[in-house]
Amino acid sequence: MVVELISVGTELLLGNTVNTNACFLAEKCAILGLSLYYQTSVGDNEQRLAETIQTAQKRSDVVILSGGLGPTQDDLTKEVVANVMGKTLIEDEHTKERINDYFTKSQITITENNWKQAFVPEGAIVVDNENGTAPGVIMEENGKTVILLPGPPNELIPMFMNDIYPYLNKLQPETIYSKMVKVCGVGESTAETMIKDLIDNQTNPTVAPYAKVGEVHIRVTARAKDEEEAKKMIKPVVKELKARFGKNVYSTDENETLEEAVIKLLEKNELKVTTAESCTGGMLAARLVNVPGVSEVFREGFVTYSNKAKRKILSVQKSTLKKYGAVSEKTAKEMAKGGVFATDTDVCVAITGIAGPDGGTEEKPVGLVYIACYIDDKVTVREFNFKGNRSKIREQSVVKALTLLRECILDVYGK
Amino acid sequence: MVVELISVGTELLLGNTVNTNACFLAEKCAILGLSLYYQTSVGDNEQRLAETIQTAQKRSDVVILSGGLGPTQDDLTKEVVANVMGKTLIEDEHTKERINDYFTKSQITITENNWKQAFVPEGAIVVDNENGTAPGVIMEENGKTVILLPGPPNELIPMFMNDIYPYLNKLQPETIYSKMVKVCGVGESTAETMIKDLIDNQTNPTVAPYAKVGEVHIRVTARAKDEEEAKKMIKPVVKELKARFGKNVYSTDENETLEEAVIKLLEKNELKVTTAESCTGGMLAARLVNVPGVSEVFREGFVTYSNKAKRKILSVQKSTLKKYGAVSEKTAKEMAKGGVFATDTDVCVAITGIAGPDGGTEEKPVGLVYIACYIDDKVTVREFNFKGNRSKIREQSVVKALTLLRECILDVYGK
Repeated sequence: MVVELISVGTELLLGNTVNTNACFLAEKCAILGLSLYYQTSVGDNEQRLAETIQTAQKRSDVVILSGGLGPTQDDLTKEVVANVMGKTLIEDEHTKERINDYFTKSQITITENNWKQAFVPEGAIVVDNENGTAPGVIMEENGKTVILLPGPPNELIPMFMNDIYPYLNKLQPETIYSKMVKVCGVGESTAETMIKDLIDNQTNPTVAPYAKVGEVHIRVTARAKDEEEAKKMIKPVVKELKARFGKNVYSTDENETLEEAVIKLLEKNELKVTTAESCTGGMLAARLVNVPGVSEVFREGFVTYSNKAKRKILSVQKSTLKKYGAVSEKTAKEMAKGGVFATDTDVCVAITGIAGPDGGTEEKPVGLVYIACYIDDKVTVREFNFKGNRSKIREQSVVKALTLLRECILDVYGK
Repeated sequence: MVVELISVGTELLLGNTVNTNACFLAEKCAILGLSLYYQTSVGDNEQRLAETIQTAQKRSDVVILSGGLGPTQDDLTKEVVANVMGKTLIEDEHTKERINDYFTKSQITITENNWKQAFVPEGAIVVDNENGTAPGVIMEENGKTVILLPGPPNELIPMFMNDIYPYLNKLQPETIYSKMVKVCGVGESTAETMIKDLIDNQTNPTVAPYAKVGEVHIRVTARAKDEEEAKKMIKPVVKELKARFGKNVYSTDENETLEEAVIKLLEKNELKVTTAESCTGGMLAARLVNVPGVSEVFREGFVTYSNKAKRKILSVQKSTLKKYGAVSEKTAKEMAKGGVFATDTDVCVAITGIAGPDGGTEEKPVGLVYIACYIDDKVTVREFNFKGNRSKIREQSVVKALTLLRECILDVYGK
């Protein structure tokens, strides 16, 4: 089945907004096994939007439009779609009530133009918006489907996942089901080599790797007559991937992040962690604090950017800094040890490196980063040579620090 | 002049990559005063790509394609464009040498397929790639232009800014020149109201506000016969904006970030700063460390997520935490003061708040954040009620903290 995406909004054509919706929808369509050949962004312009919809309808089975469902005069996606399909807009009582409730709850006065959002094309399926006023719309005609979604990602994403994803899955002759195997501590090309046979030889389920910063996510997707059957087909492949990547698999949950997996591991082993950061300057701590409820395992962290701070807060020896320098294996080790002794924690991860663009030498080039983890009276340190600009080097450092922390816990506690 | 963007790459249609190139190019086209009506993403497919180019050529003066210039068989943008325009590809000696140099310098062995990148359509203008092997290409025919750019942003952006931007500017009857006025500490709608007359009444120069997280950027763009003339026209408008927003203007440099402006201010007044963060968990410190050479003014920072850490590291009183709670004006003030006294710094910014999704009460809802700044024996504290999810609340907190820090320095030191 062929699908096409149309993003509506002049803000996209002025470069005010990065089109993350298109990426989100494209990924979900790929998971659903839908063929996406074209994605078009067009402004809030009646004629150009109508032409774009007509072109898309000719070459696709499903057209998904996002944006332009707001209450203002500029928002005309619904009106244009109705016009192109020869439908009139009629007031939907249910949506009218929902909008009324929405405004009552948020204690905002309804302005007259908001009622425009209660109108939908005749015969359309109305999809409730849990996070805003504009309803989603599904229109079916002559075996073809047009779907209208609101533009704000916090409205579009939940609506798509709750209602549109299952709807599209049902449209197809087979059910699509997929599972993500998330791997850390293995490079992209190594990971691809390790599963080349699986990628090349399997058509159902399919195996597809996605490279992320410092991680590889592998999606296993099966098509079957129902979800149960698809799950059964996926199971041995996921098992095989787990066998090949072993401890490097940190999750098979689509939504679990590396920091969440690490926090869970700390909780499971009743460990408290602290951070000692130089070049990352707080990014590692900030990433741990991404996880709500982190306070059980993370209570304090240090940014020790200067040598003096490393000495004062983390008790790094003056002689170490003098002899080996701030960016050295020895300093990283002392930072990690110092972090544990400066707090009442069990583990400390320390990062020290040269993020650039200045400060590099032939001996210690930009990108050289040492990461150490102190746990159970042992300290493990790793040297990295990252490529990229300042922000890329710091981002990779954080992922490698989380990876090292995870490995050290598993080594000591086995779970 | 009408321009159209075509992004080529199956990875875009699979949702593996967010199309930041399209946003970058759209913004630059807007600055150049070009009208962009359509942006299309299409896969590495000969027929569909050819059709997309033909459609774009019919309705636009300039077509910019990005991606698909790589050395592999999948990369066929150049081949398809040449075919559509009835041109043959010929080997470009200069590019061949450049590719040879590139590989020699990076000490990588050239594989045979790399030479494919030395071929360009006959009669085309070749644009050197400073950061990769694929050259850019400009083709002119019958008053229309087709431009080919490499897909990786680190190749596309410098090539566009160095060569394509000036080329497009010259194509137009007038020169376009613009300046950005960056404002912090003023809400989006307030800012728009303050300059509504400038937006509405001026056509040349134009005034356009862009809302960023906690900031508003206002672009002033003039069209004139040459750059000098355009600069002259912009000057009084920028002056007027500076008069209206006063101290809230932190930069008129396109590339300067808020953290850079703050760091400069600290340097100018020879001040050292420290950070004391709870809900942001290191994000503020990390943002300061975004700036290379920050070590002159920022040497250490603290993440005090638990009450115990607030007490131990920042000397927040037990009674304060008990009576007012960790998220309170009083705690924020004591954190900021404690930060200065725990270090040898002059200023401390402290953040404490409820980032959610849990932990909110009727009295202290999710989004309540206190930010304090201690400087020159005085402490200033502000209360915020942010909307949005955990990450949005934390992001806004960091911007407001930088804004408060900036204001406090200006209040005390006047510069």
